[in-house]
Amino acid sequence: MKRSTFCDMPCPVAQSLERIGEWWTLLIVREAFLGQRRFGDFQQRLGIAKNVLSTRLRKLVEEGILERRVSSEDAREVEYRLTDKGRDLMPVLLALAQWGERWIYKGRSPLRYRNRHTGAELVRLAPRDRDGVELAPRDLEIVRKDAAPTLKPAAGRRAGARSGTR
Amino acid sequence: MKRSTFCDMPCPVAQSLERIGEWWTLLIVREAFLGQRRFGDFQQRLGIAKNVLSTRLRKLVEEGILERRVSSEDAREVEYRLTDKGRDLMPVLLALAQWGERWIYKGRSPLRYRNRHTGAELVRLAPRDRDGVELAPRDLEIVRKDAAPTLKPAAGRRAGARSGTR
Repeated sequence: MKRSTFCDMPCPVAQSLERIGEWWTLLIVREAFLGQRRFGDFQQRLGIAKNVLSTRLRKLVEEGILERRVSSEDAREVEYRLTDKGRDLMPVLLALAQWGERWIYKGRSPLRYRNRHTGAELVRLAPRDRDGVELAPRDLEIVRKDAAPTLKPAAGRRAGARSGTR
Repeated sequence: MKRSTFCDMPCPVAQSLERIGEWWTLLIVREAFLGQRRFGDFQQRLGIAKNVLSTRLRKLVEEGILERRVSSEDAREVEYRLTDKGRDLMPVLLALAQWGERWIYKGRSPLRYRNRHTGAELVRLAPRDRDGVELAPRDLEIVRKDAAPTLKPAAGRRAGARSGTR
């Protein structure tokens, strides 16, 4: 039973990956955040095959993550711009970047992330509840809206955490 | 110039995707967060082909995201547990989930995320600087440690934001 799509999984993570989980897609979005707009610039920055880039851009436009516009500077040119939906991927990119900084670069990354206006560096993205409390994975509970708690994230070692009762 | 790996890109996003960007990998990590530990349980929950699951698990162990342990309950059984590096992927999964909740489910998702102890629901992950200021994409600046600012994320419309000077 090999799946080529996650479309039928009722899970927001699966559904998001269905849209942005293809090889290259998030790097194209990263480039858009960094200011690239033109096909040739994406292509050159990423060293990606033109046909692959073309397919990925088309899908990103179909999904409403990028929009295709005529350049305001040159009417013969097409530009790709992030939509609100696309800009809203910033936390995904930042979470990936921070994980990479911590676990792959181990602090030796050449990049810094900061407040453009004050220079203050970013802290790590942390889940918070509406009371402002920062949550560790073990404090997080995922429940169905219409039922008692069903999915409890693993919190390292839990008593009685066998999965045989599914 | 088709790349099959992002290994040579000096970017924490690319390096993270190199490790967790393969189809299925993040869903396996999601299942580990939800308490699955055994090969058969991952397989059944995800409906993934055994050979693909086997390859992905092996890579996750090699990368130090999961660890392979003999079950404390049955010495014939092997379990896969998240390491600290693996648990630290929580913000990545949560960022993906929240984006999906917002843009795909549009509030109709069956799931809620909350503080296990108080029931308070989570708010959206938001980048903050060390002064506690919440940053929109346009407020974020990415700079090289050893140089003046080089990479400025696109902030919607910026004056003079042509990329011809790269």
